[in-house]
Amino acid sequence: MAYINLKNELPGIRGLMAYSPDTAKILNELAEILLRDDENTLSRGDRELIATYVSYKNDCFFCQNVHGALAGHYLKLTIPEIDAIKSNAVSAPLTDKMKALLEIAGSVQMGGKSVQEQQITTARSAGATDREIHDTVLIAAAFCMFNRYVDGLATWAPDDRQLYVDRAPIRANEGYINTPLNITK
Amino acid sequence: MAYINLKNELPGIRGLMAYSPDTAKILNELAEILLRDDENTLSRGDRELIATYVSYKNDCFFCQNVHGALAGHYLKLTIPEIDAIKSNAVSAPLTDKMKALLEIAGSVQMGGKSVQEQQITTARSAGATDREIHDTVLIAAAFCMFNRYVDGLATWAPDDRQLYVDRAPIRANEGYINTPLNITK
Repeated sequence: MAYINLKNELPGIRGLMAYSPDTAKILNELAEILLRDDENTLSRGDRELIATYVSYKNDCFFCQNVHGALAGHYLKLTIPEIDAIKSNAVSAPLTDKMKALLEIAGSVQMGGKSVQEQQITTARSAGATDREIHDTVLIAAAFCMFNRYVDGLATWAPDDRQLYVDRAPIRANEGYINTPLNITK
Repeated sequence: MAYINLKNELPGIRGLMAYSPDTAKILNELAEILLRDDENTLSRGDRELIATYVSYKNDCFFCQNVHGALAGHYLKLTIPEIDAIKSNAVSAPLTDKMKALLEIAGSVQMGGKSVQEQQITTARSAGATDREIHDTVLIAAAFCMFNRYVDGLATWAPDDRQLYVDRAPIRANEGYINTPLNITK
């Protein structure tokens, strides 16, 4: 049970968003532009994977399953395949560019100053643009916020990981802005 | 110098915001609602102090000075007094409620799961409402994002702390949304 009375039974960030719709509107706009905006050379799947990786590093069960399922949906990967990337991105079947961006995201998770110039050089050598490096850092930073919001107030999350997978196509279709807050899963 | 070519000379998050105005708009709206919205029982000074405390814990020079100067402006405190609160909030001349909220914010900085139920109980006993606890967690979480964005891309920051103090009344008057991005300090 959450540390505060959310006046609803919704899981994870959705309970917080129903409790605080004014901040929810802005947080959803942020998720929408970072993870779904079409003016971006990183695919939606790749961006969801960055979000998933950071949420895993932050040990946020709700976020890593919501976004892991979305990454799996877009990239046509199963839960075990997503789990393998989370636990060992270096040896995962990803492009060198994505590996380099995930490494940057992992450093952002530890703290802004953990990002090293060599990581940026490696990402650029693998084809990452300045814009992609910028977006990777901002997505990773944003999930350091979302994860802390979700867990800092001790929200609940469904244990059944298949529920997140089942919901992913709906969320992929709806996006983050137009999701009604009064549904139960 | 920042890790990417920002095409401007602005310091800290302002250089990033000029580089990426679409995400900047949303990030500024988030800062505005969290730190300045009038529908909040925590004063603007108290909220800036929470932002400052987390930015200090994240070792983000730019953010802790921008928001420390704003906290000082609102709360009529000098830089040394703000510094004393950052380094030792427990023995600072603050209300028990603010001490309890800063302790929660400090736990959020370490990670969402670091927040303990006892800290919430203590804050509530000191008079904090659910809403104030919610906002403290979200402000702390948001600064874990802002700090990582600023330092993860290695932006520069003016060394002279007085510059931040001089600018605070202007920022307090303008707010976060209407700040022009083409000014140099």
